[in-house]
Amino acid sequence: MQSKGPFDYFRGLYADRTHSMMSSEIRELLAVTARPDIISLAGGLPYTGVMPVEMLVELAERVFREDGPGAMQYGPTDGYAPLKHSLCMVMEEEGLRAYPEEILITHGSQQALDMLSKILLNPGDPVIVEAPSYVGALNSFMSYQPEIHTVSMDGEGLLLGELEAVLLRLRRGGRRAKFLYTVPNFQNPAGITLSAERRLGLVELAREHDLLIIEDNPYGLLRYEGEPLPTLKSLDPQRVVYLGTLSKIFSAGLRVGWAYAPPPLLEKLLLAKQSADLCTSTLTQRMAHAYFQTQDWRATIARLVKLYRSRRDAMLESLEEFFPEEAAWTRPDGGFFVWASLPPYLDTKSMLAKSVESKVAYVPGTGFYPGRRGANEMRLNFSYPEESDIREGIKRLSRVIRREMSLARSLGLDADGAGR
Amino acid sequence: MQSKGPFDYFRGLYADRTHSMMSSEIRELLAVTARPDIISLAGGLPYTGVMPVEMLVELAERVFREDGPGAMQYGPTDGYAPLKHSLCMVMEEEGLRAYPEEILITHGSQQALDMLSKILLNPGDPVIVEAPSYVGALNSFMSYQPEIHTVSMDGEGLLLGELEAVLLRLRRGGRRAKFLYTVPNFQNPAGITLSAERRLGLVELAREHDLLIIEDNPYGLLRYEGEPLPTLKSLDPQRVVYLGTLSKIFSAGLRVGWAYAPPPLLEKLLLAKQSADLCTSTLTQRMAHAYFQTQDWRATIARLVKLYRSRRDAMLESLEEFFPEEAAWTRPDGGFFVWASLPPYLDTKSMLAKSVESKVAYVPGTGFYPGRRGANEMRLNFSYPEESDIREGIKRLSRVIRREMSLARSLGLDADGAGR
Repeated sequence: MQSKGPFDYFRGLYADRTHSMMSSEIRELLAVTARPDIISLAGGLPYTGVMPVEMLVELAERVFREDGPGAMQYGPTDGYAPLKHSLCMVMEEEGLRAYPEEILITHGSQQALDMLSKILLNPGDPVIVEAPSYVGALNSFMSYQPEIHTVSMDGEGLLLGELEAVLLRLRRGGRRAKFLYTVPNFQNPAGITLSAERRLGLVELAREHDLLIIEDNPYGLLRYEGEPLPTLKSLDPQRVVYLGTLSKIFSAGLRVGWAYAPPPLLEKLLLAKQSADLCTSTLTQRMAHAYFQTQDWRATIARLVKLYRSRRDAMLESLEEFFPEEAAWTRPDGGFFVWASLPPYLDTKSMLAKSVESKVAYVPGTGFYPGRRGANEMRLNFSYPEESDIREGIKRLSRVIRREMSLARSLGLDADGAGR
Repeated sequence: MQSKGPFDYFRGLYADRTHSMMSSEIRELLAVTARPDIISLAGGLPYTGVMPVEMLVELAERVFREDGPGAMQYGPTDGYAPLKHSLCMVMEEEGLRAYPEEILITHGSQQALDMLSKILLNPGDPVIVEAPSYVGALNSFMSYQPEIHTVSMDGEGLLLGELEAVLLRLRRGGRRAKFLYTVPNFQNPAGITLSAERRLGLVELAREHDLLIIEDNPYGLLRYEGEPLPTLKSLDPQRVVYLGTLSKIFSAGLRVGWAYAPPPLLEKLLLAKQSADLCTSTLTQRMAHAYFQTQDWRATIARLVKLYRSRRDAMLESLEEFFPEEAAWTRPDGGFFVWASLPPYLDTKSMLAKSVESKVAYVPGTGFYPGRRGANEMRLNFSYPEESDIREGIKRLSRVIRREMSLARSLGLDADGAGR
């Protein structure tokens, strides 16, 4: 029998879920915008230049001299036990009392999202997310074919009334959401923080509706003003899976994250971890532990906070100065992102090519919604570009937006989006 | 509404697939047998003491001094490009010509197994494995609820006649296997190598039946005698996904593996990798690349081969000397494992407790089969324990087996297993 061509050959092989996997628009964009002449406000990268090379060399030397063969060996599935104690210390910094035996160390917190999706989602299961939401989480969820319900946000975070309506609608249909996914602090992408009052209300509502909450908190320690708010996990430990990561406070390149989960769930996550990759890198876990043991990690965070605060301020000031008054944007108290909304007759996706022509990039809003929303919205990153680039980038972007607006006006497309 | 207890609460939340996830028996065993007074032939660990600590420190120093901030940063989803070139060099060592752009770097090759399962398997889909097979692969597959078909092996590897019968049976039922999973060199757990003739026959059969082959080759460069055989990938590049890992030739603690896959499949794997963990650790990938660039890695492999060969010889000699003549075992040309079969009336699982009492451990055979086979079989590891421990371990184990045999005889249970 003649062998068929490779494309014929593979077509019939994929699982149903594979057809619902999508490439992150951000990833594809980053490839284009890596050109040095383009100011990219599109990424989501931490600034890693704050760690002295000498310190990194010293950490590695310590790890290898202490136990070289051990650092090169497989480790336990649940993670390197001493590091779990360090992670408890990190969580304590936000007022969260955690137990090492309820922690699973993951290859970045993205892995925890993927494994939670795997152990919880049958095709068609309802899950609830904020709109907009973190695109990496949406990708993980969607690869297990759930039915995604969204809840809008205002300046204080997700709208509890809207959440309750979703929960009641599901209950009336005899269904139950598998979980709510939320980034309560300086959300990616919207930069919004869930208020103290809403946190209490959310936990109350979750109790009433038997709702599991996935609390993703990558940016919690990167607060530039205001007082820390209690984690959802601390408000109801048995109902919340808390996800942490070292990517934003130490290193994204180590890929060390964790899930602090109620024990029955933790047990299932452990099974998933075994088949996912056996264990997280022993070397990177020991490097991270050595960092927390020997370095003034709080001072590093303080330096990062100072740096990111200036960059955020540069972005907010430039937006104020250059953006048209028809635009609106969030004013994050921490984290990496500002979310901007342009007049409804503008399309940030089609505008991107012109923007890149003008040597500035951002991420269009649609990728952050499971449905068709966000066409006139955009995510702007201030953690990675330098202050002067932020100012110049926002200036360039403003020009692009103003040109688009006047073009739309001259074509009569600006009448509350009727022309679209 | 009153909150229910945590156990009630979680029960209804799991996906169907979660009920088919099983903990690896090996993992649970390793916990027990880590006691220093027990000689463990149960593990599957490489010996990592062969890497000089100075060299490891030097590698880390080089990586950080070259680009500290880069090593701490996120990297591309598909992997660190320079490392892909190094991996091509490693594959070339086994006569496999590979292209960097067809490689995806994974967090250990276990992750590639998990992602292949995710993108290929709907519940109930047929997959084919060797019997016995690598337990980590079985765990990954089973977590996506396939229908697992097995093909037995003899001293030359899987039986092509049996494979053909499975393929024909599926075809008659209008079905198609999603893939065949095979470890052609020094298989884990059986220590068997697929002969040159069978390799050709297998590829031929795969062509006839449009069968995708997953070739998992962790041990290929650890050959203690005989000539290297061609990889299946080199015999039919478009029909084979080749999985490699640095765990057995450099470091398991770095968690660096890779898939060398036909482009259409690679594209889907990339999507799965994005949602699985964004990217493999930048630091560990750069460490690995620095190793291949600056060190005599072939000399390291030569040292490992010498060490493991002696340990294998120690095990084979001890088996010859101490094991009862009713037992049979494989004589691997490489890799980490010997597979032993005891008289059919013995049960290696129930014998394990007595064995641990006698301070020696192994892995019972049943975990390596998806069905109920392997009750009188066991896996013995010779890569990790020292020669003297191997001899003493096999001696102790022989005593346990002989006692069990004479107990069975005195109870009349030895008549071709009729009493069981």
